[in-house]
Amino acid sequence: MTLARPELISLAAGFTDTATLPTREARRLLTQILEGADGPNALQYGSTAGLPRLRTLTVEHLARLDGAKPGRVYGVDRTVMTSGSQQLLYILSEALCDPGDIVLVEDPTYFVYLGILQSHGVLARGVRMEADGLDVDHLEQVLTDLKKRRLIQRLKLLYLVSYYQNPTGITTSSEKKARVLALLREFEEAAGHPLYLLEDAAYRELAFDGRTAVSALKLDTSGERVIYTGTYSKPFATGARIGFGMLPPELVDTVLNIKGNHDFGSANLLQHLLAEALGTGAYDQHLASLRKRYAEKARVTVQSLEQYGGDYFSWDTPGGGLYVWARLKAARTGPRSRFFETSLKRGVLYVPGEYCYADDPGRPKPNHELRLSFGAAKPEDIQEGVRRLALAAKAETRKRG
Amino acid sequence: MTLARPELISLAAGFTDTATLPTREARRLLTQILEGADGPNALQYGSTAGLPRLRTLTVEHLARLDGAKPGRVYGVDRTVMTSGSQQLLYILSEALCDPGDIVLVEDPTYFVYLGILQSHGVLARGVRMEADGLDVDHLEQVLTDLKKRRLIQRLKLLYLVSYYQNPTGITTSSEKKARVLALLREFEEAAGHPLYLLEDAAYRELAFDGRTAVSALKLDTSGERVIYTGTYSKPFATGARIGFGMLPPELVDTVLNIKGNHDFGSANLLQHLLAEALGTGAYDQHLASLRKRYAEKARVTVQSLEQYGGDYFSWDTPGGGLYVWARLKAARTGPRSRFFETSLKRGVLYVPGEYCYADDPGRPKPNHELRLSFGAAKPEDIQEGVRRLALAAKAETRKRG
Repeated sequence: MTLARPELISLAAGFTDTATLPTREARRLLTQILEGADGPNALQYGSTAGLPRLRTLTVEHLARLDGAKPGRVYGVDRTVMTSGSQQLLYILSEALCDPGDIVLVEDPTYFVYLGILQSHGVLARGVRMEADGLDVDHLEQVLTDLKKRRLIQRLKLLYLVSYYQNPTGITTSSEKKARVLALLREFEEAAGHPLYLLEDAAYRELAFDGRTAVSALKLDTSGERVIYTGTYSKPFATGARIGFGMLPPELVDTVLNIKGNHDFGSANLLQHLLAEALGTGAYDQHLASLRKRYAEKARVTVQSLEQYGGDYFSWDTPGGGLYVWARLKAARTGPRSRFFETSLKRGVLYVPGEYCYADDPGRPKPNHELRLSFGAAKPEDIQEGVRRLALAAKAETRKRG
Repeated sequence: MTLARPELISLAAGFTDTATLPTREARRLLTQILEGADGPNALQYGSTAGLPRLRTLTVEHLARLDGAKPGRVYGVDRTVMTSGSQQLLYILSEALCDPGDIVLVEDPTYFVYLGILQSHGVLARGVRMEADGLDVDHLEQVLTDLKKRRLIQRLKLLYLVSYYQNPTGITTSSEKKARVLALLREFEEAAGHPLYLLEDAAYRELAFDGRTAVSALKLDTSGERVIYTGTYSKPFATGARIGFGMLPPELVDTVLNIKGNHDFGSANLLQHLLAEALGTGAYDQHLASLRKRYAEKARVTVQSLEQYGGDYFSWDTPGGGLYVWARLKAARTGPRSRFFETSLKRGVLYVPGEYCYADDPGRPKPNHELRLSFGAAKPEDIQEGVRRLALAAKAETRKRG
């Protein structure tokens, strides 16, 4: 029996869990800031690169995650604060890419990034993925092919969502990152310019066990080829959107010029808030409870799939992040598919997998997958949402059978 | 006698007055928000267009300023919240202009806007100014000339900083705004597309007497040709950067798509703060004290010019905003001029007037002017800064005499 108008459960939005948001901590920290001697400065314009104290804390934070020391590679001069890491992804496309240029992406990848590339007339080419991340052999094939077709000169960078990837939940191993870096170097001569590795580490700190592989920053001892983007939004508060980047020195001025034209620097009050959160340990404390919460909701998602969907779906169990990537065995999942429509009628929304694939003439676009987000929904809604998806899948199977 | 290393006084920065920033109000409002039922939502992602309550309050606020009623022209659907109005200026350039396009600007105009246009390969053409704003006869000449030279098809919009303009402090009268709108309409057929009036009202609320001419929004009864950008940063807190735009309906989707790629929407916490400030009257109260403060500092600037600089400078007395626009009678003011160098040695910084002029082959770039900001500096520093400028000017005059 289906309810006539069941309340819509969204397993689509990449939102974080409203119940976990640190209202008390934020209130306490903001009060401290605004009552303190630095209070007026928190309400004043800052600099385009960002609050020096927050940049320093960010460098220390990253160095700690990588088991490294602040210094040349982990340097304040390379660090820029942005309005979420999203803004930096946008600015980097403006800084590095012209219309007709090529960017390599994971196949599938973060769909908003595909939108950014498209809006700048940049072509995305997919590189296959394996359980431990990017398929490096395929990367080599793609690079070789671009070189043969004299297109390698248009290649600018490889975009890698390296931890608990959106949408697949896959983490690229450090060994693979090192191989990727070496391969890109190998093809630079043919390209005639640097080939950057853009490492998007948005989900790094949402590792359920708190453990994290080293970033490509650590592996790129030159300090010149890795662009690292991270965010404090998802680990702390998405409503206080502060992200950051560590840039190769030669890109710093260009990025700051564009950022200056966008907004002269991200809101200073939010940067003071994050600096206070990091400096007092409130950030780490909050993150610890957040990890437990997301680990539990990932468990509920997977358990619900096992309970209701085992006959119709296969899926990957994530070790962090906000997403479960699933495959529907018997039918398509696209926005015009019957399964999507039936799911919506039953009151559940997901992100069709095909949104996450580049328009790549080199392969047909897979269309049997779906991204389930366990970020925003309550555990009981996740369970009910997955149950509805299973019912929709069952109906599909019956029609086909 | 000159001090060897006098502390640098900046009359250059467009910052607001740190002493006036509303730390107590912000603390109180943020506490209310974060303790309230809506607290967690303030720390969550919002929508790309912005917080509905703030958009509604913004519409009401603007309608009140214009003596109008919320409705079709002052509509929530047309209203988008941004990271300062700066971000919207950037997005609009992306949305409306291609490389090689033309934008008309006041001569002089806001220099960061010139930088945005340049970064997009857009050509700026200057329209002369008079004491009551844009020289409409010159505008007609420029439009006629563009039409004759078949360049009018590349013209996209006229950018007008309509209240207490940055850098001149000039306000364009409503009568002139109406004539500008009519003229742009007249040339649309030749252009083959809409010619927008982009009204940047960033300084509108910093009218010292609190009175404000109606905006072009009110005069454009079609609701289709005026893009209005405003900001809460300067009137409230530049560290909580929230600006807004009222867009012609046909531009809303395009702007939201680009904004979505930039950042999916400006930080929700700051939007909640501004909504609370507007809704409780704290915003208006703060603004009243801010106006007094800036009026006093404008008076100090002008008085100091009279006291020390009467022989060397002429200037315009502003009725609002953050700037005094001055002309140096006997010498150039550019960044490579001796006057600039001498001023810097004496410990005072200004914005050279030539930064504010487009690279327009139609006229030599004026180079005897300077923008003095009384926003950030303390009254005693303004006085001392102007004294140092006068000493530098005196030295120039002596050398020439």
